[in-house]
Parts: sequence; C-alpha cells; structure tokens
Amino acid sequence: MSVAHAESQAAVLDLERFLLVERRRVDLALAQVAAGVLDGVAPALAQPMEYALATGGKRLRPILAAAAYRALRDEPDGRVYRLACALEMVHTYSLVHDDLPCMDDDDLRRGQPTVHRRFDAARATLAGAALIPAAVRVLDVEAASLGLSAETRSKLTVELCRAGGALGMVGGQLLDLQGEEVAVDAEGLERIHRGKTGALLAAALHVGALAAGADAGELAALTVYGEDLGLAFQIVDDLLDVEGRTEVLGKTRGRDLDLGKATYPSLYGIEGARVLAAGHVDEAVTSLRGAGIRSPELEALARYVLERAH
Amino acid sequence: MSVAHAESQAAVLDLERFLLVERRRVDLALAQVAAGVLDGVAPALAQPMEYALATGGKRLRPILAAAAYRALRDEPDGRVYRLACALEMVHTYSLVHDDLPCMDDDDLRRGQPTVHRRFDAARATLAGAALIPAAVRVLDVEAASLGLSAETRSKLTVELCRAGGALGMVGGQLLDLQGEEVAVDAEGLERIHRGKTGALLAAALHVGALAAGADAGELAALTVYGEDLGLAFQIVDDLLDVEGRTEVLGKTRGRDLDLGKATYPSLYGIEGARVLAAGHVDEAVTSLRGAGIRSPELEALARYVLERAH
Repeated sequence: MSVAHAESQAAVLDLERFLLVERRRVDLALAQVAAGVLDGVAPALAQPMEYALATGGKRLRPILAAAAYRALRDEPDGRVYRLACALEMVHTYSLVHDDLPCMDDDDLRRGQPTVHRRFDAARATLAGAALIPAAVRVLDVEAASLGLSAETRSKLTVELCRAGGALGMVGGQLLDLQGEEVAVDAEGLERIHRGKTGALLAAALHVGALAAGADAGELAALTVYGEDLGLAFQIVDDLLDVEGRTEVLGKTRGRDLDLGKATYPSLYGIEGARVLAAGHVDEAVTSLRGAGIRSPELEALARYVLERAH
Repeated sequence: MSVAHAESQAAVLDLERFLLVERRRVDLALAQVAAGVLDGVAPALAQPMEYALATGGKRLRPILAAAAYRALRDEPDGRVYRLACALEMVHTYSLVHDDLPCMDDDDLRRGQPTVHRRFDAARATLAGAALIPAAVRVLDVEAASLGLSAETRSKLTVELCRAGGALGMVGGQLLDLQGEEVAVDAEGLERIHRGKTGALLAAALHVGALAAGADAGELAALTVYGEDLGLAFQIVDDLLDVEGRTEVLGKTRGRDLDLGKATYPSLYGIEGARVLAAGHVDEAVTSLRGAGIRSPELEALARYVLERAH
C-alpha cells in the first residue's frame, strides 16, 4: 500500500465504525471456531467455555492480529479472523482465572456474572484451563487452512505458548497478585504489565505478521508496537479505574485501590499517567513507521487506546 | 526385534528394576526441561511449577512414551525422555488443579503437601495452568531436537492438546466432579476414566509412536493399548482406595467413598473389578500383538498395573 493511499485512508478511517465491524467479524469467527472445538465436549464443560467466550469484550487481540496481517498484505482474508481467535481464547482463559475467588474474586466481568458465579469455581477452573489447549488446536488448524507451512505453524504455536505462559501473561498475573502484598515501584509495575497485558498483545501482532509472511524487521517493529500498546492500555485501564466508570467497565469500581495495589495513577499522578500513556502510543506508531509499515488501522487503534481515557 | 528375542527378554525383565531405572531417567530429563522452560520466569511462579513437577510420582506417561518408541525402533534415544516430559507436565497440571480447594480439596499428594497447601490456591491455579503452554513448548523444541519434521511436530502438538483438553482429560475431570453429585452407571464411569486417565495415557503411546515413525496400524494398536491400560489403571486405583493403603498412595484414604462417588468396586464388587481390570490388560496386550508389536516392556508395564492391586 502506498504512503499516500495509507494517509488518505487514515484521514477517513471512522474508528468507531471500524471497531464495530471488526468486533462483529471476530464474534462470528469465534462462534465458528468454538462450535468446532467444543464439538463432542461434555455439555457441563462446553457450557462454561462457551459462556466465557461469548461474554462480549473488545476483541482487541484478534482485531490487532487481523490489522497486522492487513498492514503487510493488501488482500484481506476472512480465515485470519478464525486464526486470530486463538489469541482471544488465551485472553479469555486468563480473565476466567483472574476472576476466581482465590484470585481477584470478582462477581462481574463485562457487566455479566463471572464464570464461577454463573457456574462454580471448579467449572471455571477447568473451563479456563481447557481454553489453552483448545486455542493451540485452533491456531494449528486455522493456520493450516490458510496454507501456512508446518514450520510457520510451529512458530505460531511456540509464540502463543510463550506469550500465554509463565514467561508472559501468567508471570504477569502472578506478579500482579504479589503486588497486593508488597510495595511495587515504577519498574516493577512495568514488568507486571509487560507480562500481564503486553505479552499477549505483542503476540497478536506477531501472529498476524507471521501469517502474512513478515520479514524479521517487520516482525520486530510490530512486536514493539504491541508491547507499547499493551502498556498504554494498562495505564488507561488504571486511569479508568480511578475515575470509577463502573457502568462502562462493567466491573466493580476502584477495586484495585481497595486492594491497595500500586497503579500508574498512584505512582505518577493522573496527569503523569496520561503523559506516560501518550508516550507509549507515540513509540508504538514510531516503531511501525521506522520499519516502513504504514497502517492507518494500527495507528488508529493506538490512538483509540488513549481516547478511552477521555 | 525377533519374537524369540522379545520373549526371552520378557522372561528376564525385572520390572521393579526397569521401573526404577526409567523413573530416574525421566526425573533427570524433567529436571533438564524444567530448568529450560523456567529460565527467566518470576521465582514466585517458577517455584510452585518446579515443586509440582518434582513431587515424585510413577512417571508412567513418559515411561510409556519411551517404551512405545523403543517398541518400534531398536536403538534407544535419550532425547525421547525429554520429549516425553511434555506428557508428565500436562499430567502434573491436572493433579495440581484436581487438588485445589474448589475441586477435590486434597492436602496431600504423593505424601507431600499439595501445591496450594505449600503455596496458596492462586499460585497453584496459575502454576498449574502455566504448565500447559510450557508442555507444548517442550514438545515442539524436543521434537525438533530429535530431528522430527515440522509436520510431525504439529501432529504431536495437536495430539497433546486434544488429549490434555476438553475432549480428553479435562472433560473426564469435569464428569468425575459431577459424579459426586449425580448417580453414575457403569457406562458413565468408563466415559469418565476414558477421558480423565485414558486420554493422556493413550497420548503417551501415540507421542512415542509418532516420534519413532509408526505407521497407521501401529499407531492404532498402541492407542488401544493405552486406552485399555488407562481403564485398568483406574480400576486398580479404586481398588487400592477401598483397601485403604494410605501409606502407599500418599493420599487420604477412602476419600472417594467419603464423597459418595461411584467407583468400580462399588459398581462391580471387589472381585468383579479385579476381573474387569485383568480383561483390559489382556485386551491391551492383544492389541499390540495383533499389530505385530512385540514389546516385553509394554507387556510388563501392563501386568504391573494389575500387580499394584495385590
């Protein structure tokens, strides 16, 4: 895509509409892959898995994966959305476990009863964990349907498992839990969120890029974009939590403060946290442009993260 | 290997010694892969993961995978044990979650405090789940080190995720939990254990066979062997539970009976359950021989499962 073309598109990109259309595409793809992966599963397990996957959400990870794919290839491909659902499944598993009584003990998620409130803690534990191998299977099957080589499929699997595991997301969850017990400084807070949110967001970009046949430079730039976006996202989440927009967030307001957790606003002040988030968004966009990737969608998505805070 | 050679080996195979040597090999391999996979992981997460993996156990799944490999290839290969550790990691994850307060609420596992007793429920939940993506990474990396093609690695990954997921092990865990609430008949009990124990045991044989380059007939026969072995194993577990050998099992005795769960002895009587287990072991061995697989080790392992009951 030419720079001029990209910039003219950027100028007219209606982000609200773009997100709505994309979310619908992801929801459709997710329903398809869930039907496939839950076929033959005992209803008592399939129900909480399906419930968890169907409970709304921004679908940011699959939207990012599809946008990364389109940033490198002109032609869109519907199958990319099914591939990208693997990321949403791993993200969903982490939310189900995060909400458990032994973790954050949340009753609401996206305005709906959490999985353990709707079913029970045992079912939520099992259904959450079962989403991980299901995600790996979806990734492999859909990558094969996209015609990707076994070598690339293996890379995708290892990337998803790295980002969704102890070195990535789960490590961040654990550090986050510990943050309720011990004081966390600015460096520690960034480490938490690089793992908890950043790793899987970066993996979304990575997966979309690998599926599109990215070279090493493009991969690296998209990974940096994902990491910065993840940090900006978390800072804005902390800001929204302080501002207490329960209706919008659909979760109990100010919970992190109640738990005495370190947050970006508590460490940097509200204005300082806003500046920090804006800096990460700038770095995200700069990383893309530095690698010659002109994507109005990815740039708009980065700005969207900031706009949530207003 | 000739039939005569196999039979003479079977006659002299010292099972106790074989199991001891194999267990040591698996423990060594497990320590190696754990060190690799936990490198860089936050200590608070790495510790419960390592603790869970190091807590003894029979190591039956990796031993079976290695034996399946050797049944098809004369030359042994030490790397097969590291590959086989992926199965033990998935098995270990299921035990960690099974023991959680919201599931079976067990204090002891193999005579040691369970992970949530040694650490806490949040850490046990996270560490357990993190073992799944770690297992997939180990499987892929070690299969590559064995020189297996990306195509075969993809098959191995999908097989592990199928067996360790909603259609296999986790489905069985869920049905097992439900069995505490509703009456389970003979057919239902078999369905539970085909999932809960059988799927991963069958996957162990499948993984070892795929790594050795098995043909379709050999794969099918080894899968049947694994499924029958899994059922025999579970029946004997139920028998041991009734006979209440707490010291040997290292878990609270008669727990399943306390919970009012259906068990093989409660449905078939003690003698009936013994006959049923022996029948499954016979079928397991017959399946191997029918496919021309003469493995003194696999035959001895099948007999070992029965002998545990005496």
